[in-house]
Amino acid sequence: MCDACVIDEVKRSMLSRRGLLGLGAAAGAAAVMPAGAALAQTQTAAPAATREVRGTALADLTHTLDPEFPTFSGQQQFFMDQRYRVEKDGYNLFDLRIDEHTGTHMDAPLHFSPDGLSVDQLPVADLMAPLAIVDIRAKAAESADAQVTPDDIKAWVSANGELPERCVVAMNSGWAAHVGTPKFRNADASGTMHFPGFHPDVAAMLLEGSAVGIAVDSLSLDFGISADFATHMAWLSAGRWGLECCAGLDALPASGATIILGAPKHRGGTGGPARVFALV
Amino acid sequence: MCDACVIDEVKRSMLSRRGLLGLGAAAGAAAVMPAGAALAQTQTAAPAATREVRGTALADLTHTLDPEFPTFSGQQQFFMDQRYRVEKDGYNLFDLRIDEHTGTHMDAPLHFSPDGLSVDQLPVADLMAPLAIVDIRAKAAESADAQVTPDDIKAWVSANGELPERCVVAMNSGWAAHVGTPKFRNADASGTMHFPGFHPDVAAMLLEGSAVGIAVDSLSLDFGISADFATHMAWLSAGRWGLECCAGLDALPASGATIILGAPKHRGGTGGPARVFALV
Ligand SMILES: [Zn+2]
Ligand SMILES: [Zn+2]
Repeated sequence: MCDACVIDEVKRSMLSRRGLLGLGAAAGAAAVMPAGAALAQTQTAAPAATREVRGTALADLTHTLDPEFPTFSGQQQFFMDQRYRVEKDGYNLFDLRIDEHTGTHMDAPLHFSPDGLSVDQLPVADLMAPLAIVDIRAKAAESADAQVTPDDIKAWVSANGELPERCVVAMNSGWAAHVGTPKFRNADASGTMHFPGFHPDVAAMLLEGSAVGIAVDSLSLDFGISADFATHMAWLSAGRWGLECCAGLDALPASGATIILGAPKHRGGTGGPARVFALV
Repeated sequence: MCDACVIDEVKRSMLSRRGLLGLGAAAGAAAVMPAGAALAQTQTAAPAATREVRGTALADLTHTLDPEFPTFSGQQQFFMDQRYRVEKDGYNLFDLRIDEHTGTHMDAPLHFSPDGLSVDQLPVADLMAPLAIVDIRAKAAESADAQVTPDDIKAWVSANGELPERCVVAMNSGWAAHVGTPKFRNADASGTMHFPGFHPDVAAMLLEGSAVGIAVDSLSLDFGISADFATHMAWLSAGRWGLECCAGLDALPASGATIILGAPKHRGGTGGPARVFALV
């Protein structure tokens, strides 16, 4: 890249990031990383640039969890047992039992790699990020086997500018609306599930950049008919994180919100239920 | 209150809130609620005023949870069972078992009232709030039975201005530093625990205002020797929430940070492990 191109790229990046985060000029300048930093970064997180976030409200991107919440396994994965009752004991209290990968939840790199970061080891700086929402609702309504493809990412960039540094890319397939119905798992007669996910080529494409996480509104980063978890494998084993069963994306802009991930923090965990917000 | 007083109060409130949240003048004006709104609100949350928050980084206020984490009961309250291993199964996954009131965790109003809000019912607007930190480390170092008293709140106000509308008041007793040691529970020969908490008179005082939550860095909203959970009773049964075993307060200013509570969202829960951040 020639110097003029680099300068153009930096300017464009500043403009898009300033627009995305609502940054003022001074803060925008501080937030810019050198062009090419994204390409240089592959496996692990570079120190986060200081960038100002602003907002006036939290949007909730979390489904309410209950024992009937649909699961990838098809088995019940969350159980509540009331141990104390206020009428008898003076207070209410439940014991909970849960499979880590239940409800709106995180996938830590450790979920798919022997030596990946556990959920408590994820850098806090990577739990707040500009949120880029890729809307594939139209094609997902036509086919439940739809995937986010590299062309969908390119279309997002055409409409919104470059992906912000260290962002989270979320798939909005419209699947959150199916959560109370069999359509969420959408299993056929053979038991194969049909729901949207990220194509592995998008994982490879985003690994060239600095995105810290990907999020889906369905049960898995990979689409339901995947036989090999190729997106999980590529993405998590590269040290990035995932979010599954994300809610509330319909109400957010394609760019401009900041996602805040209330990831669980149990030592050595492979993921777990998270409280997820968007600052808007 | 006469009109001139109201205007003075609004101005003072604007100044303090602008300082606390780093607001510009325009945003500051939008953020002001009528003086007296705090006093008028007793039981339930009034609609949150739109106030801009800003920050450049998240501070983590959450302890890492593991099976040895100290508990109020003295019994182990968190268990991890590895169900799948990447070497054998292609991925890692744990089943978790947990008492809701373990680790850095929320107390929902339902914990101490038959008809209080459950943790999933807490308004999202009440999970992001200006954070007022009351430092009682000096007296807690002298006596583990120290409490946050009304005088401590008055001293905070003298130093920092009025408590912001709909804030969270946190006790920093220095107890987070003891979390890996017997000093955290600090049980005597008879089994009575000795750690700091909020005096019930502070709960009563804050119930006159609009604070949405109180937070402690110890095991309980009430100090360890409390026999009657008077602070829990007064505060939670009035529809406000609590946070226990909060970490990381030492690194934050007495005023100016914004707390973000990644509360769990299981239906009907009385509380549970939370991921807690401060936006600074
Ligand atoms: Zn998962
Ligand atoms: Zn509790």
